Amino acid sequence: MKGLVLDAVWDPKPDYEVSEWERETGKAITGNSIWRHPKLEVRDWPDPKPGPKEVVLEIQACGVCGSDMHFYETDEDDYILYPGLTRFPTILGHEFSGKVVELGPEVETLKVGDMVTVEEMIWCGRCIPCRNGYPNHCTNLEEIGFTIPGAFANYIAVDEKFCWKIDGIAERFGDEEKAYEVGALSEPTSVAYNAMFERGGGFRPGHYVSVFGTGPIGLAAIGLAKAAGAGIIAAFEISPQRRELAKAVGADYVYDPREVNPGEVLMELSKGEGFNFHVEAAGAPHLTVPEMEKALAINGKIVQIGRAAKRVPMYLEALQVRRSQVFGAQGHSGHETFPNVIRMVAAGRLDLSPIITARYKLDEAVDAIARSTSRTDGKILVKPNW
Amino acid sequence: MKGLVLDAVWDPKPDYEVSEWERETGKAITGNSIWRHPKLEVRDWPDPKPGPKEVVLEIQACGVCGSDMHFYETDEDDYILYPGLTRFPTILGHEFSGKVVELGPEVETLKVGDMVTVEEMIWCGRCIPCRNGYPNHCTNLEEIGFTIPGAFANYIAVDEKFCWKIDGIAERFGDEEKAYEVGALSEPTSVAYNAMFERGGGFRPGHYVSVFGTGPIGLAAIGLAKAAGAGIIAAFEISPQRRELAKAVGADYVYDPREVNPGEVLMELSKGEGFNFHVEAAGAPHLTVPEMEKALAINGKIVQIGRAAKRVPMYLEALQVRRSQVFGAQGHSGHETFPNVIRMVAAGRLDLSPIITARYKLDEAVDAIARSTSRTDGKILVKPNW
Repeated sequence: MKGLVLDAVWDPKPDYEVSEWERETGKAITGNSIWRHPKLEVRDWPDPKPGPKEVVLEIQACGVCGSDMHFYETDEDDYILYPGLTRFPTILGHEFSGKVVELGPEVETLKVGDMVTVEEMIWCGRCIPCRNGYPNHCTNLEEIGFTIPGAFANYIAVDEKFCWKIDGIAERFGDEEKAYEVGALSEPTSVAYNAMFERGGGFRPGHYVSVFGTGPIGLAAIGLAKAAGAGIIAAFEISPQRRELAKAVGADYVYDPREVNPGEVLMELSKGEGFNFHVEAAGAPHLTVPEMEKALAINGKIVQIGRAAKRVPMYLEALQVRRSQVFGAQGHSGHETFPNVIRMVAAGRLDLSPIITARYKLDEAVDAIARSTSRTDGKILVKPNW
Repeated sequence: MKGLVLDAVWDPKPDYEVSEWERETGKAITGNSIWRHPKLEVRDWPDPKPGPKEVVLEIQACGVCGSDMHFYETDEDDYILYPGLTRFPTILGHEFSGKVVELGPEVETLKVGDMVTVEEMIWCGRCIPCRNGYPNHCTNLEEIGFTIPGAFANYIAVDEKFCWKIDGIAERFGDEEKAYEVGALSEPTSVAYNAMFERGGGFRPGHYVSVFGTGPIGLAAIGLAKAAGAGIIAAFEISPQRRELAKAVGADYVYDPREVNPGEVLMELSKGEGFNFHVEAAGAPHLTVPEMEKALAINGKIVQIGRAAKRVPMYLEALQVRRSQVFGAQGHSGHETFPNVIRMVAAGRLDLSPIITARYKLDEAVDAIARSTSRTDGKILVKPNW
């Protein structure tokens, strides 16, 4: 088969101390400090064979994530920008849907022909966090498209326990192709859902919700907020194209944060009461969180989804005076998140299909990732079967 | 009667914009920006008369709070250090207990002779936060000993709804005088309880708890953590006297934070798992919270009680990777807090009497406050009937 393979040179930065674990496993904990001179190309890769509990999927759609973009972009010394767990060479791609085409001998819950979407986090189910019910914090994590072969490819083998059926979505749309496209949005939507409803504990119907940054995660957050009965939804986004998408999925007000004072805008919209639920999906908390602090409702919540290796100058007095709190979120596994996201789409409560702004063939996958660097699209899909 | 009266000159700092509300009410929102040349003395003050729903209490014990200390201490321009809501002249003192000696005509729940302790926050019960159940965020707040006459005095008149009976404490100790002393600790203990159990949502039995700063609030937090079944309790405190008190009320380990790296110590004590619940009671979050961030258990909580007008350089990634959260807390009213604190003492689950380190007569109240500036005591009491 073919796959979009990233290769890079293991060349730790002079000031980075490689751990024994990294040396043994070949996995970099901080990718940006180790992987240099990345090379991205669509090339031949061995067909996957299913393990005993695995299924082989024929991949139908796979979204380009910000992390994929950060493999394409490099710093001044030609190290990848992505700062997380990685082992190369591997096939990229982790937001996907596919059709079951082969079963391992011990598979119990799926059959050939089933339509599924898949978690990206291959949590072990055995470490202390997994035993405590926190799979997003698994200490033996493998990640599809980061440390093991991903889904910008014709096929993938994956344990059935990470697969979630999307046949309900196909029934809703009466259109398998659309169901695969929308099904591929389940992973980023689940990242937003986990942050908002599992980590942040959600908001009450009628509450005012702000979303800072409307890339795909922020757009999913807007759609979820709308579906969950938010009062006013206000969004802040630099790209005019993304501002339009934000409106399309449910934002009532959308602003360019360079042209307004976001904290003041939110206080005006709420007639001085503040916003109840603030979603950080810009990955720029040093800029966005101080604005959220200015517009906290009593009992207000700030949920950090975007990633940034920057310290945020926080004024904890604001949390005290406003009875407020900050939650950190990562991941999408566990806590009924994937199945609830799929239910919402199947029930017609959540339709993020407008955010799909481009589709590419597998042979053009490098172009798809290059395009994502403009940061103006919603979700770009690669469709290996197209 | 006599009372410890603070008077000061209304002399707004040049860069402070006095609001219309401040001018109308005579209340400074930011006391440190307005009140200059404070003068503190025990002097005559009119006897209080009860309003229709008020009782008059003969005050038995009143604790010295850090805020009282910040009325005594001044900045280089002789402004009070206390940064909060204030109107002078008034009698100081707000952590107290007393005996009911007179009833207004509409009082229904108390009788002459009842032993009570009292909330400090005179919440209106009518504003939006009060209507929503958030009395600690009342927008029409009066504060005993800050904006209205306090309890470093012989008598005080107060609405019965702010009084909580402590007869159960007297029964436990078989000693009314001790019950009044311990009853006067209810207010600061309720500040810690509100932060830990109402705002922070508590911790599970067995969880590891850290307390940064062991003044009276931090000492109360330690006692509460012990009573609620914490696993290890570790505290950090500069004063050696206060470190001893921390041990006396339940800390398993106590350190001088200048002599160790607190984050590393907590990681060692927890064998690398981190602490589950961190209490900031030092009022120095710019120093303490970064240490807490280094030692977050998965699902860890940081609760900010101490007040400081400083920005904290927070690393929100730590909250994300550790599935963690930060809560801001203020106040002690509502949410069953006072009655639960009193129950714990009456049931013998919480005994903070060891933290009472000095007792003064009312005539010596200025000395009591002067002594508190050494920041080495537990709780200093003024006993007007002594």
